[in-house]
Amino acid sequence: MKLKNEYGTVKIIPLGGLEQIGMNMTAIEFEDSIIVVDCGLSFPSDDMLGIDLVIPDVTYLKDNIDKVKGFVITHGHEDHIGALPYVLKEINVPIYATKLTLGLIDNKLAEHELTNRIKRKVVKYGQTITLGRIRIEFIRTNHSIADAAALAIYTPAGIIVHTGDFKVDYTPVFGDMIDLQRFGEIGKKGVLALMCDSTNAIRPGFTMSERTVGKTFDSIFTDNAKSRIIVATFASNVDRVQQIINSAYKFGRKVIIEGRSMVNVIGTASELGYIKIPENTLIDIEQMKNYTDNQIVLITTGSQGESMAALSRMAQSIHRKVTIKPNDTVIFSSTPIPGNEKAVSKVINELSMKGANVIFQDTHVSGHACQEEIKLIYSLIKPKYAIPVHGEFRHLKAQAEVAESLGIPKENIFIMSSGDVLELSSESAKVTDKVHVGSILVDGLGVGDVGNVVLRDRQNLAENGIIVVALTLEKYSNQVLAGPDIISRGFVYVKGSEDLMEEAREVVSAAIDDYLSKHTADWGRMKNIIRESLRDFLWKKIKRDPMVLPVIMEVSGY
Amino acid sequence: MKLKNEYGTVKIIPLGGLEQIGMNMTAIEFEDSIIVVDCGLSFPSDDMLGIDLVIPDVTYLKDNIDKVKGFVITHGHEDHIGALPYVLKEINVPIYATKLTLGLIDNKLAEHELTNRIKRKVVKYGQTITLGRIRIEFIRTNHSIADAAALAIYTPAGIIVHTGDFKVDYTPVFGDMIDLQRFGEIGKKGVLALMCDSTNAIRPGFTMSERTVGKTFDSIFTDNAKSRIIVATFASNVDRVQQIINSAYKFGRKVIIEGRSMVNVIGTASELGYIKIPENTLIDIEQMKNYTDNQIVLITTGSQGESMAALSRMAQSIHRKVTIKPNDTVIFSSTPIPGNEKAVSKVINELSMKGANVIFQDTHVSGHACQEEIKLIYSLIKPKYAIPVHGEFRHLKAQAEVAESLGIPKENIFIMSSGDVLELSSESAKVTDKVHVGSILVDGLGVGDVGNVVLRDRQNLAENGIIVVALTLEKYSNQVLAGPDIISRGFVYVKGSEDLMEEAREVVSAAIDDYLSKHTADWGRMKNIIRESLRDFLWKKIKRDPMVLPVIMEVSGY
Repeated sequence: MKLKNEYGTVKIIPLGGLEQIGMNMTAIEFEDSIIVVDCGLSFPSDDMLGIDLVIPDVTYLKDNIDKVKGFVITHGHEDHIGALPYVLKEINVPIYATKLTLGLIDNKLAEHELTNRIKRKVVKYGQTITLGRIRIEFIRTNHSIADAAALAIYTPAGIIVHTGDFKVDYTPVFGDMIDLQRFGEIGKKGVLALMCDSTNAIRPGFTMSERTVGKTFDSIFTDNAKSRIIVATFASNVDRVQQIINSAYKFGRKVIIEGRSMVNVIGTASELGYIKIPENTLIDIEQMKNYTDNQIVLITTGSQGESMAALSRMAQSIHRKVTIKPNDTVIFSSTPIPGNEKAVSKVINELSMKGANVIFQDTHVSGHACQEEIKLIYSLIKPKYAIPVHGEFRHLKAQAEVAESLGIPKENIFIMSSGDVLELSSESAKVTDKVHVGSILVDGLGVGDVGNVVLRDRQNLAENGIIVVALTLEKYSNQVLAGPDIISRGFVYVKGSEDLMEEAREVVSAAIDDYLSKHTADWGRMKNIIRESLRDFLWKKIKRDPMVLPVIMEVSGY
Repeated sequence: MKLKNEYGTVKIIPLGGLEQIGMNMTAIEFEDSIIVVDCGLSFPSDDMLGIDLVIPDVTYLKDNIDKVKGFVITHGHEDHIGALPYVLKEINVPIYATKLTLGLIDNKLAEHELTNRIKRKVVKYGQTITLGRIRIEFIRTNHSIADAAALAIYTPAGIIVHTGDFKVDYTPVFGDMIDLQRFGEIGKKGVLALMCDSTNAIRPGFTMSERTVGKTFDSIFTDNAKSRIIVATFASNVDRVQQIINSAYKFGRKVIIEGRSMVNVIGTASELGYIKIPENTLIDIEQMKNYTDNQIVLITTGSQGESMAALSRMAQSIHRKVTIKPNDTVIFSSTPIPGNEKAVSKVINELSMKGANVIFQDTHVSGHACQEEIKLIYSLIKPKYAIPVHGEFRHLKAQAEVAESLGIPKENIFIMSSGDVLELSSESAKVTDKVHVGSILVDGLGVGDVGNVVLRDRQNLAENGIIVVALTLEKYSNQVLAGPDIISRGFVYVKGSEDLMEEAREVVSAAIDDYLSKHTADWGRMKNIIRESLRDFLWKKIKRDPMVLPVIMEVSGY
């Protein structure tokens, strides 16, 4: 590898990611210039009860706002663009992305009424933009959404190549294959560091071409010529939708697009020319009644079993316009994202019970590179340092092993944690600092007002329910004027439980009387006595430990 | 198929199962005799917050207690024996099972202090027991636990064969292979109905022999000769544990058994002779320090990522006796049960971060028959009626398709729902009735005291938290003497939220004052006003909808 004329050090700082998968965001910093690669959101993990979204804490960027030159975005998936509207409210800097990616970002900005406040610019493949001391070139890749880009990030300290999410598709559905030649050319110049997608790094082999799914659709359409066909897939997989439309057109069927996010994405893709829909093919769902089953293809959201998505509502018979019938063929053109397996199974069972024929084999390919593709990119780029990105720790580790197998010395491979500051130069590489990072929980309109205490309480409430013990005391005399009243929610509620609750009331009442007969009323101590006496009683009686919330009110003697 | 001398009809009634997977329990009824096949429990689904276990409602058996002759149990897994201690408290009838199965049941009865109250009998393979008008023969099968049995149930109306959970293992680790000859012999007599395991019915091919896993262990032990080896697997898979012990012995390692359920099951299996542990092989965990890493194999629970199991505690560094080190090799000898994928991934990531080498490929085989094995059983039994059992609806449907492909007429195949009464005779088969069935939730010591209202409240509390509004009124005058006080849990809790809560208090206070100025105090209406004013305010302000619990106390004027 040639590295010449380089000087200084460049810092790589992941600001989200490993600790909260999906929240992809990395700062690249050279002297007075910071660029930020991607700005994704994460969906809440099971223990984040009631949370809608998780976004990265950008304190580091706010503290260095004078340096921040802009966001460069690799592609239009939620885990790369979803946090933008929230983050831009705090850091108003320009956005650079390819056309479709920016179209999808524009939709989000409009929803958040930010359209007129944010500067943004479409970048073409091969084009280079200069942001402060850093130049960025967008390179064509393939992924499960069109217009995905890798970034060659030119800094005085050397070139960093960030693949974004990618696969190598020799026969893509839309546009051209990944620009392997340019990867080779840049590799020849000498690359300081490669940040490469690890999502599929535990899988050997090569990911199949998106086009193979089209062949499967054709064969399913042939086999189910008499059925109404319903296909569930990811709203953002425009090429998949294109192929379904192609098959529909070939077999003389009309296409209905259903589900809010599907309608949005396909609308934008269609406006911008990323999907070709033959005339008279798309029809409105209201027109469905004018056609026979074998003239219809319904493309819908819900392939992950999301309970509010269109397909789940059809399966549960609560969709307003579509009723599943025994002659329907339902295709899941997706694989369950880990964590969604049970929800997907549930929908499949519900559809099967209604007599639908459910198909989920050979109807999906991944959008991420497997081991042989990762090796190909390493072999074209031949980086000095390897920094696996995107994926859980075990995926990053699997890529590290691939990199090592290709001859990159172990000490030149870095599995980074969020907040790590990796300083790179042609001479050395070292994690030199740790900056503040974190996850901010979004619940309704509240951004960051649900923290750990609230989550712990929600967990406790969810598992055990709550008992409120209310009591009115007379001031000074400390006489109990009313209560203790006991009200529970999420605890027990059946015939017979009145006895339990009455007994509980007596236990608490006795404990309070005992306390008041010996002491003056200290509210803190009284609350403890209420809590302890009730928890003790319930644990002994039925081995349960609900949250106990004592409420003491005070009335002046008058 | 010959069917001769048969008379009358036999009823098949699933009392748990399809609606709550795992709760396997089927009544077979002929005139005045009922036998019950299996008595399993189910683990709570995600929406059953705080629930420990789910057991079947046995109202039908209680209502027909004079007919119920006993339980016949196919094998010792929780989903076939787990509800016994609860159900036996309501229906004290004898239990019949093979030796290991009964050993595991005995452990449960002892825990529930039922040992001396329940009659039970060990049955050998080939042996037939007579319960009222019904005779039951236990037939050897293979499964992921030893001593599994299929049942040939002889009734005057014909023979019903129930496979239990099974696979065909030509080279089992313990004991002999499934008694295919006897299946053939019984098939020759003429079988009315086959109830066959559907768990793997969507999978083509033939499940691999348990013995193949042993070879994988040998090769992993060879490759990791210098590491400490930790293997996580199902506690009940005695043959798997046997093979790990075999490899350990072969490679000169000592074995430690860790995790409560693992210690219990292996203890019972060892006492009853179902596992052979060479002398001086098993050591106590306290002795581990006397050996080097390459002399140790730790067999542990936690292969499903269960948060309280031994392996998860090791991964989180909260296990008291085992600390994961970079030289450790951890084998997952299991596949995640649907729903557990994320939890398993989490443990793998945690182990990897500690530097452990985690292996999970080719280290598990299923205990259930795939399509070719199912076809084999149908071909030996050649039943008149097919009743797929065990599995989700889509699995039952897949077996129905297999049965149809083998020539069984569609109208002779029944996918039953819990509570369906299927009446069978050599002449006809028909669902004639529906009996009461249901799921009873167990939470702590409470059996059945958590119902839908409680679960709905828990869900609401989990997602939105609770706000208690407390208020003391003077009787007759309806003057507000104290409050409204507002206390929240699981709602918001950060700097700045005091303002929101104070504003909320003012809104509620104004609404109450407004009401009281115009009306006499009706508590029901006042509570509604509190609820509505607060919910309105919070929805407008932050788009959230917590549970609001008004508490009104009354003090006599004095």
